[in-house]
Amino acid sequence: MKILIVNGPNLNLLGTREPQIYGNLSFQEYLDTLKLRTSAELEYFQSNVEGELINCLQNSNHDGIILNAGGYTHTSVALRDCVEAISVPVVEVHISNITAREKFRHESLISPVAAGCIFGFGLSGYELALNYFLTTEKSI
Amino acid sequence: MKILIVNGPNLNLLGTREPQIYGNLSFQEYLDTLKLRTSAELEYFQSNVEGELINCLQNSNHDGIILNAGGYTHTSVALRDCVEAISVPVVEVHISNITAREKFRHESLISPVAAGCIFGFGLSGYELALNYFLTTEKSI
Amino acid sequence: MKILIVNGPNLNLLGTREPQIYGNLSFQEYLDTLKLRTSAELEYFQSNVEGELINCLQNSNHDGIILNAGGYTHTSVALRDCVEAISVPVVEVHISNITAREKFRHESLISPVAAGCIFGFGLSGYELALNYFLTTEKSI
Amino acid sequence: MKILIVNGPNLNLLGTREPQIYGNLSFQEYLDTLKLRTSAELEYFQSNVEGELINCLQNSNHDGIILNAGGYTHTSVALRDCVEAISVPVVEVHISNITAREKFRHESLISPVAAGCIFGFGLSGYELALNYFLTTEKSI
Amino acid sequence: MKILIVNGPNLNLLGTREPQIYGNLSFQEYLDTLKLRTSAELEYFQSNVEGELINCLQNSNHDGIILNAGGYTHTSVALRDCVEAISVPVVEVHISNITAREKFRHESLISPVAAGCIFGFGLSGYELALNYFLTTEKSI
Amino acid sequence: MKILIVNGPNLNLLGTREPQIYGNLSFQEYLDTLKLRTSAELEYFQSNVEGELINCLQNSNHDGIILNAGGYTHTSVALRDCVEAISVPVVEVHISNITAREKFRHESLISPVAAGCIFGFGLSGYELALNYFLTTEKSI
Amino acid sequence: MKILIVNGPNLNLLGTREPQIYGNLSFQEYLDTLKLRTSAELEYFQSNVEGELINCLQNSNHDGIILNAGGYTHTSVALRDCVEAISVPVVEVHISNITAREKFRHESLISPVAAGCIFGFGLSGYELALNYFLTTEKSI
Amino acid sequence: MKILIVNGPNLNLLGTREPQIYGNLSFQEYLDTLKLRTSAELEYFQSNVEGELINCLQNSNHDGIILNAGGYTHTSVALRDCVEAISVPVVEVHISNITAREKFRHESLISPVAAGCIFGFGLSGYELALNYFLTTEKSI
Amino acid sequence: MKILIVNGPNLNLLGTREPQIYGNLSFQEYLDTLKLRTSAELEYFQSNVEGELINCLQNSNHDGIILNAGGYTHTSVALRDCVEAISVPVVEVHISNITAREKFRHESLISPVAAGCIFGFGLSGYELALNYFLTTEKSI
Amino acid sequence: MKILIVNGPNLNLLGTREPQIYGNLSFQEYLDTLKLRTSAELEYFQSNVEGELINCLQNSNHDGIILNAGGYTHTSVALRDCVEAISVPVVEVHISNITAREKFRHESLISPVAAGCIFGFGLSGYELALNYFLTTEKSI
Amino acid sequence: MKILIVNGPNLNLLGTREPQIYGNLSFQEYLDTLKLRTSAELEYFQSNVEGELINCLQNSNHDGIILNAGGYTHTSVALRDCVEAISVPVVEVHISNITAREKFRHESLISPVAAGCIFGFGLSGYELALNYFLTTEKSI
Amino acid sequence: MKILIVNGPNLNLLGTREPQIYGNLSFQEYLDTLKLRTSAELEYFQSNVEGELINCLQNSNHDGIILNAGGYTHTSVALRDCVEAISVPVVEVHISNITAREKFRHESLISPVAAGCIFGFGLSGYELALNYFLTTEKSI
Repeated sequence: MKILIVNGPNLNLLGTREPQIYGNLSFQEYLDTLKLRTSAELEYFQSNVEGELINCLQNSNHDGIILNAGGYTHTSVALRDCVEAISVPVVEVHISNITAREKFRHESLISPVAAGCIFGFGLSGYELALNYFLTTEKSI
Repeated sequence: MKILIVNGPNLNLLGTREPQIYGNLSFQEYLDTLKLRTSAELEYFQSNVEGELINCLQNSNHDGIILNAGGYTHTSVALRDCVEAISVPVVEVHISNITAREKFRHESLISPVAAGCIFGFGLSGYELALNYFLTTEKSI
Repeated sequence: MKILIVNGPNLNLLGTREPQIYGNLSFQEYLDTLKLRTSAELEYFQSNVEGELINCLQNSNHDGIILNAGGYTHTSVALRDCVEAISVPVVEVHISNITAREKFRHESLISPVAAGCIFGFGLSGYELALNYFLTTEKSI
Repeated sequence: MKILIVNGPNLNLLGTREPQIYGNLSFQEYLDTLKLRTSAELEYFQSNVEGELINCLQNSNHDGIILNAGGYTHTSVALRDCVEAISVPVVEVHISNITAREKFRHESLISPVAAGCIFGFGLSGYELALNYFLTTEKSI
Repeated sequence: MKILIVNGPNLNLLGTREPQIYGNLSFQEYLDTLKLRTSAELEYFQSNVEGELINCLQNSNHDGIILNAGGYTHTSVALRDCVEAISVPVVEVHISNITAREKFRHESLISPVAAGCIFGFGLSGYELALNYFLTTEKSI
Repeated sequence: MKILIVNGPNLNLLGTREPQIYGNLSFQEYLDTLKLRTSAELEYFQSNVEGELINCLQNSNHDGIILNAGGYTHTSVALRDCVEAISVPVVEVHISNITAREKFRHESLISPVAAGCIFGFGLSGYELALNYFLTTEKSI
Repeated sequence: MKILIVNGPNLNLLGTREPQIYGNLSFQEYLDTLKLRTSAELEYFQSNVEGELINCLQNSNHDGIILNAGGYTHTSVALRDCVEAISVPVVEVHISNITAREKFRHESLISPVAAGCIFGFGLSGYELALNYFLTTEKSI
Repeated sequence: MKILIVNGPNLNLLGTREPQIYGNLSFQEYLDTLKLRTSAELEYFQSNVEGELINCLQNSNHDGIILNAGGYTHTSVALRDCVEAISVPVVEVHISNITAREKFRHESLISPVAAGCIFGFGLSGYELALNYFLTTEKSI
Repeated sequence: MKILIVNGPNLNLLGTREPQIYGNLSFQEYLDTLKLRTSAELEYFQSNVEGELINCLQNSNHDGIILNAGGYTHTSVALRDCVEAISVPVVEVHISNITAREKFRHESLISPVAAGCIFGFGLSGYELALNYFLTTEKSI
Repeated sequence: MKILIVNGPNLNLLGTREPQIYGNLSFQEYLDTLKLRTSAELEYFQSNVEGELINCLQNSNHDGIILNAGGYTHTSVALRDCVEAISVPVVEVHISNITAREKFRHESLISPVAAGCIFGFGLSGYELALNYFLTTEKSI
Repeated sequence: MKILIVNGPNLNLLGTREPQIYGNLSFQEYLDTLKLRTSAELEYFQSNVEGELINCLQNSNHDGIILNAGGYTHTSVALRDCVEAISVPVVEVHISNITAREKFRHESLISPVAAGCIFGFGLSGYELALNYFLTTEKSI
Repeated sequence: MKILIVNGPNLNLLGTREPQIYGNLSFQEYLDTLKLRTSAELEYFQSNVEGELINCLQNSNHDGIILNAGGYTHTSVALRDCVEAISVPVVEVHISNITAREKFRHESLISPVAAGCIFGFGLSGYELALNYFLTTEKSI
């Protein structure tokens, strides 16, 4: 099973900035430990450019995509259209609980077209999403 | 590890009504299979009465609560206050993707005070929530 | 033909309080006269507890339900979900014309999932709803 | 007892267009069967012109009016003012359940000034309204 | 100086209905007394049909128009476009103080394109509007 | 007949600033010509201070007040309360057509408690208001 | 191919009023030149009365309708229902770019039920709509 | 003088949870000290169930009720209807200043039908409400 | 203990105007009786001028302030800032139940920064506020 | 005459995904047939990156641009500013009728600054836009 | 060059209250240091009374005004009208970043009519505004 | 002191397009003159691509950033998150007074996380921002 993890804008800063909030772990380091714990084949892509995220999703031929669209979550109709158009199922993940933050983060344009949504579990959210794909696979 | 699963109004109808949508599995049957797959000790409570759900949560001394508040999700400040007041962590689960349904289901009063939110994965959402508690336990 | 009439919160006060507005007739007295005029078998339930109303509706195996949800009309997603989930058709009745009262009474969460709506005819609304079930029966 | 039935715009199309939705019965045919079942004297008026509906209502000297204002229901302050100004009681009927359709059909400007409202019972709604007038008459 | 007075829907009921509110004076009777007090030549038109009001305004070659559009005041973009398009100046009059009535009467679509607005002075509002035209004439 | 004219903030600038818009006539000069044309006894007060306007209105024992509250029109609940509390009738005047200007000028807090409203006739609006008081006097 | 062109309120004023904005061409003159350039058979109807526009559309048996509903575009649920009910396809045209004008002109009630929308091309919009019908015909 | 104190959902947690915020005093302990300081006869009821609060209020024959409806304050039309229907005067109390908390706590459905409102004085609010009843009694 | 009572605009009219509503008691008379019943030293200030109220509050060195800001309650950010900035605790009092009046009176800008709020008890509200300060003093 | 056609995000998927909805024709194939039917010289650009679309428009020296901005239509102030700033006229095209889809697609930020708008004609919309430029050219 | 600095309500409290937030510097002390650093002639005015601020601005004959309207920023149409009416250019300054505070502080009524806006730089904002006037002068 | 100036979409058009509005000065030319007047070391970056602006800000190690985000100001949560995440202080500049333009330009997502905001001073705004950094440096 091949899974693509896609992170949007500013998520490349994890671990190097505001460590008191987000910890000292970079996403790459987290990914390395995750790979050790899973049987799935993980591929990773991060970009700050909205259109490059769309390009990446359009070209995916994985069994599933885990998407944290960062700030584009709340503003990008284009990304939403992309998620809706492609046939690979997309699980939406957010590290923080977006419903408990500023008003403009409460609504996600991605959520209504995602296979499912996981908010607020920190980095563990990515692993829960991975579990979903692995469990689903078994049940087929 | 002891986990309490709490289901709100109308979730007792699962499996017996509208099987073309929700399948033939009652929640009790699902729970039986879930118990086989997990090392956690699971307790279950369902009620259609808002205040009984509050009573149940107030009395919990479990390691974690998995809560699907059904229709009270969108209207119950009292339930929200309860989740906020108790010290047991609560994970919010919804079977369907509430963000893709009617407008009045988009906002959850529970979400901002939950430890995390899992929407749209069908009954699998309960197992993902369970995974979270088991994983967290290990990491402590 | 068996019809269940369900009244929500505060409707047990009819006839004993504010008689200058609602008259001296209690709902039970009205029901007694209604039974004399109809061939249908009428059952009656009233509760101030939202969840007990849901319990009652879930357990119904009547040919039709006449529901006046009182104050829960405007706030209960749980009751709406119940009306939508059960297979017995539900007609919504309100004694007063809710569209001519305070703003927060203009929208009913029950209406969109009811078989039909009857507002503003006083207690006669219950009889009109009954007529509907009896007429429909004949036409089948 | 003399009752006037008034239908607004596009209701003249009943039975001849979209029969898969509204059936093959024209309103005139329905009216003929209704006349056979009732002791009331029925008069009928239909117009697509807002002002002609107002003229018709102003000139009415019937014992009651059954009004389905069609699309003017949601936009016509003028029609509402007319219903409020005349002394003949007006019952508002809609064939479909307007609260379950598009957002802009949820609010009726007529409802707050009507004697009562009947929505969603199909053509049977006209007969329920008629029953109301006949029943009221008896009780006087 | 030739002035056209145009009254919209339901204003033909003045004096014959709800006399306890609007008095026993019909508009025609008021007009007769007004003609005695003014040097202007007055023409009068009333219709319940929105389009006939537009036709009337389009054909006007008077020195000024006094318009009470009744219920169309709050809903008719077409009437507003007409007032804006023609070259004869239009003064908007309302018998009652529309800002002190229901919310949906607070905004007038006519006001922004009128030469001036006079609300709440009862029938005297028409005479004030007439004074405006007569005074303006003198000052030219 | 004694009439008080009250002007609110910035209306003291009339005639000296932006003459291309408001003309070269100061309000005092306009008042002088108005006095020549009327049998009423006119008193005048202007202030930029909201509370001084309230003081002035509270102390009035005139037969009528003509009030142009300027910018306080849209924000002063205190001034509205004052107009509502005193027994002298108040006519609201605005030189410009406030409904055709910025959105925040469309609503007047004074209007619902005024005896009547006159907008958009330039300085002539004051004379129309005066006419109203003189005409009303005659008719008593 | 027979095409019906329907113009709503105030469009009869084209060419005779505000020529500096709309030009000196009346719609009839424009229609004459359009007929010379097209192989389609064109019929034309204009009315200021909402209900007459509905009557006209209901009676149409053309291959297509080009509708400019003028001011009724933004307020007429009745006209929208008519466009939705009839089987002749309707293309919506507006001479000006309604999205660049006042806020209340931004939403068209007709658009969601039209076959397509053409805004802002001046009178050329009618010809583009005609092209659409002619091109579609060829491709069948 | 007999006074009923009614506390809504989660107020049974006072003193045992979040003592750093709400103090170590349980409501029962507070009540005991209050009884020592007052001549009134105090009765106490608490429930987490909305309908039980309604039942309690309907059955009251006290001289006054002090109601802290907790989370139901902001959502319960049914409770509001009950307060409005009964003849015993109800004073609304909130321990915290609800206007300074989350947006959804700013509006109370109970307030408009309460005899008076007391917010933000901590537990002292109950005593102020009691003072009101005792003072009023004296003045009769 | 020294307490300052501050009344805002139009509260100087109490007792002399609309006695059928507010009674014949002027605030000064009420104050005289209140002084007889209390051990606190009371100082009183009233102004219709927003800025004078601010000046008064800024200069206060009392143990507590009882503020009824009248119409400024709903509009004055400046007064709110003042209450927030000074160190003397401020209790907000309103004679009427502002939540049961016009929509624009429902929100108080003062409430979120007040020590507590008392609405709807008539003049007794001032004495309840006074009780609060006296009770608090004792408990220190 | 040289015309630039610009397609925004996800429009590169036409023909290869969801063929049951959008058909099997890729945009390139459609473009080839369009070139055969027109005398204009067509250039084509597609990108998923908002800023590249802006770059492309800024560099255009064509006689006209046909722009389908896809999902950026509803969110991009930057693209709107670009369309407004450049001197080449831009016609906005959408394949589907955006006014009949989700609420957030009803408003286009591009429309108010476009030369004209064409919605809902499928791929034919591009040819209608082309016709506009060719017709306009002739008439100059 | 003569510059007038105008401070609105509560800004007289700077330096004496809440020093932990605003520092120990009074505005007068800051002004003294500013005068040492600038070639401009500075005049200063502060008032808590809205109308006195308007009086001050109306009487100004300086080369520029630096205005911090404090709480009146968000509520005073009268002050806005004054800034718009006078010919001296006004720069708006706020010590704090008003866009990062409570919702009701996000919109300034002054901003749209100011020559420019400077928010969030602390007391330095006044000097930046001063720089603007001095730089502009040089460039003329 | 090293300062980075970042301009967003369409600001590369300054000086070459719409010179009657924005003047003939390109931003590069302005920058050249600014460098002559300042002791700071200035670096400049412009892009029309949202993500490239984020990349640039993330990589900055300057003493301060002056950011004019153009159209992304009002729509980019991603850019806002970036400004909030990095440690270099960011001053927001807009050439025009965005509060006096279209409604959708009134709110800046950047403002609440900026060190300060400068709007409406034309190109001088960049120099004022520069002054801020230079002045702050001195005071440390």
